[in-house]
Amino acid sequence: MTILAIDSSGLVAGAAVMEDERMTAEYTVNYKKTHSQTLMPMVDTILKGLDMGLDEIDAVAVSSGPGSFTGLRIGAASAKGLAMALNKPVISVPTLEALAYNLYGFRGLSVPIMDARREQVYTGIYEFGPENELLTLMEGAAMAFSKLLERLNELGREVCFLGDGVPVFKEYIRNNATVKYSFAPNHLSHQRAGSVGALALQYYKEGKYCTAAEMRPVYLRKSQAEREREQSLK
Amino acid sequence: MTILAIDSSGLVAGAAVMEDERMTAEYTVNYKKTHSQTLMPMVDTILKGLDMGLDEIDAVAVSSGPGSFTGLRIGAASAKGLAMALNKPVISVPTLEALAYNLYGFRGLSVPIMDARREQVYTGIYEFGPENELLTLMEGAAMAFSKLLERLNELGREVCFLGDGVPVFKEYIRNNATVKYSFAPNHLSHQRAGSVGALALQYYKEGKYCTAAEMRPVYLRKSQAEREREQSLK
Repeated sequence: MTILAIDSSGLVAGAAVMEDERMTAEYTVNYKKTHSQTLMPMVDTILKGLDMGLDEIDAVAVSSGPGSFTGLRIGAASAKGLAMALNKPVISVPTLEALAYNLYGFRGLSVPIMDARREQVYTGIYEFGPENELLTLMEGAAMAFSKLLERLNELGREVCFLGDGVPVFKEYIRNNATVKYSFAPNHLSHQRAGSVGALALQYYKEGKYCTAAEMRPVYLRKSQAEREREQSLK
Repeated sequence: MTILAIDSSGLVAGAAVMEDERMTAEYTVNYKKTHSQTLMPMVDTILKGLDMGLDEIDAVAVSSGPGSFTGLRIGAASAKGLAMALNKPVISVPTLEALAYNLYGFRGLSVPIMDARREQVYTGIYEFGPENELLTLMEGAAMAFSKLLERLNELGREVCFLGDGVPVFKEYIRNNATVKYSFAPNHLSHQRAGSVGALALQYYKEGKYCTAAEMRPVYLRKSQAEREREQSLK
């Protein structure tokens, strides 16, 4: 099968075409630009590069969150629009799982940290099982970074951190980590549509997909506007 | 610093822009097309996407081989041309090391296998050291795949295979491997300019770079034309 995968959950905008046997194209841009302007042209660029029409796609995979609220809405809207027009299913891939999957077979814990502002991160704790399958030790959540590091220190295992939270919390980690740790090198440190597509292949085989109408981004936290409204209503 | 990295050593054509802090763009196409027609337009696409001019590049990194003879020549010629015009250094990154580096921190051996025809592969055996640095257990070489697998069976450690040799030797591995093994998932299984760029950042800091004129692709084997000529002269 052929999956078109997109990720606009953070600063990165990414698109990839994944087939059963191989990834035929991937395009990633990590540059301050409006995803609403760049994502669909990127899809167009890679499909043209493959001499491929949208009608050859069997499913649309999307990084479903958590992440930037606007980014997630752009990703979801693009995936829904494409899937609805093509009458194909949507495969929602949790952003943190896709990030963790960048580090396939890592010997320690794969810990994505996405900057969620206010000293918080979107994070989860993952490892690779005996067959190198992605296992979840702690489900994706929004939490104080200090709490996460306490937990990792308790676990006592080697950690590799990745994601846009790394530059924000690097110094804090250096000063407070009691476990062995490293930071993923640049080519593996951010969202990749290829990773979304690779997990989407698995999820599809497990029956984990939905219709365009059913797909919902996973925000994990209320938006700033919602928080401020609640605050003002108190 | 800002590195433009390219890889056209195999079926994949790839280009990436790597900065010290992050990879700002990467474009990968794994589709039967002439690299001589696709590689430079891909470079152009990603630079435009970054609103970036060629004059902002500090060095050009290239996957230096082994690989397809024509592919390596296109990569080398492109890197030399760009570096010479810009008066910047070239960073040669061995193709097998860049492939192995896709599996950063892998708990076993990272073993790239590139199909070299006639039952042979271009291969090397790599692992990640205590600080997740890439270590070479067996230098890149052209060898019979059966010999490689014998050696891996002797080493007795878990192996992850990647590269375009995987589909060719998958069945042979299933029938003859006595060690635990897996195949890298699609998003990590082929050449990536991002991986070339990530290693290039390290190599540059270690002083491993040269001028455009000095750069030479590493073929590891004689070309078919050379072999046939020698044969006919005997």
